[in-house]
Amino acid sequence: MDISVVFVEPQFTGNIGFMARTMANFGFKSLVLVKPPELDEDVFRFAKHARYIVENAKIMADFKELRSSFDYLAATSGVSTKSPKKFKRIALTPRQLASKIWNFSGRVGIVFGRENYGLYNEEIEQCDLLVRIPTHEEYPIMNVTHAAAIILYELFISKSESNEMPLAEDFEMSLLNDRFSEILKLINFPEHKRKNTEVMFRRIIGRTMLTKWEYHSLMGVLKRIIYAIQREHM
Amino acid sequence: MDISVVFVEPQFTGNIGFMARTMANFGFKSLVLVKPPELDEDVFRFAKHARYIVENAKIMADFKELRSSFDYLAATSGVSTKSPKKFKRIALTPRQLASKIWNFSGRVGIVFGRENYGLYNEEIEQCDLLVRIPTHEEYPIMNVTHAAAIILYELFISKSESNEMPLAEDFEMSLLNDRFSEILKLINFPEHKRKNTEVMFRRIIGRTMLTKWEYHSLMGVLKRIIYAIQREHM
Repeated sequence: MDISVVFVEPQFTGNIGFMARTMANFGFKSLVLVKPPELDEDVFRFAKHARYIVENAKIMADFKELRSSFDYLAATSGVSTKSPKKFKRIALTPRQLASKIWNFSGRVGIVFGRENYGLYNEEIEQCDLLVRIPTHEEYPIMNVTHAAAIILYELFISKSESNEMPLAEDFEMSLLNDRFSEILKLINFPEHKRKNTEVMFRRIIGRTMLTKWEYHSLMGVLKRIIYAIQREHM
Repeated sequence: MDISVVFVEPQFTGNIGFMARTMANFGFKSLVLVKPPELDEDVFRFAKHARYIVENAKIMADFKELRSSFDYLAATSGVSTKSPKKFKRIALTPRQLASKIWNFSGRVGIVFGRENYGLYNEEIEQCDLLVRIPTHEEYPIMNVTHAAAIILYELFISKSESNEMPLAEDFEMSLLNDRFSEILKLINFPEHKRKNTEVMFRRIIGRTMLTKWEYHSLMGVLKRIIYAIQREHM
């Protein structure tokens, strides 16, 4: 699957260059510019060796053209979801996006907005999901290309991991959690602590991004533990 | 503990501004500039609301002064450790740095080098560890402030996590691994698979950044499993 970076109404040409360079740093090649300013020397000065990304960028006239050219659009925003006026959707972290995105199919775009305003509310509403970088409350608004660097970095490292080894799927994760609960019962784990311990296990396993191979190995161990305990009751 | 960002011989004043803004985005306030150029309007234009970080920056004359002012220095480099000429040390990823750094004590600095050359070899050798961001092989060299954004982001999110909940320490992790190995023995896990399964468990647990609370809960479960299996042999 190919992921495009979309920059909506960039104002400073230097940022188009920085965007291209950051993309190249993490192996992304496809750039879409919606209503960009005229490209000048600054673009290429900041793009450095990623000049080819700007030269091959696709220019679009408006957000409507963008929406109709993509199957999946992830909007980015620097505004906290705590202000519900801004949008109705709960934002994913870059890491959560990274754990999902390689399962998408079709044409996928990560959309970055204007330097001074970001994406408009009605643009965000037309996207399929929303991503926000966790930042310090005192100054949450990042430069758009620095925000892009973080998101593309997360996508890059999750791709390197998932390329080598496919990750366990949701149904496998719940089988694993079921086995763990079964063990808690078998070892007479105190009733009042059982629920919390199950939640804890689910969280640990959930954030570790288990590969298929690890899933099967771990499952094998849990099954043998169950067998070893049950022998006793026979 | 307070972490400083150190920028050694910056060449473009705009990058000093971007560095300050990125620091503010992730709640870092202490900037050290080693042999900076004269500060001009560009610094403040790019720093935006992080002007106060530049105004309070500490200026140092050379790397020697820097070294004597800090207890712990983490060098950053965009050059792959595959070229051993450049340095002798194995680089940590930003995430590995983030999992360790909050246990350091004393004055800690993350050191970024010149835009065109990075840090000199002899500077890296004077640092206590080396950090490298995983990047695409075709264009690994990032703009220094984008690299800083990624490293400070990783430190920020690990701090938010570890602030709420202190993380398990190394000796606790190895106790956990010992218990797991003990269980593999007790359930007669096939000898030839045992080593790999132990390594797998260590990796899963290692990358999940276990909190102290999770450590104790998990340890409790493992102890009860051991007890439940052993009853049978008595």
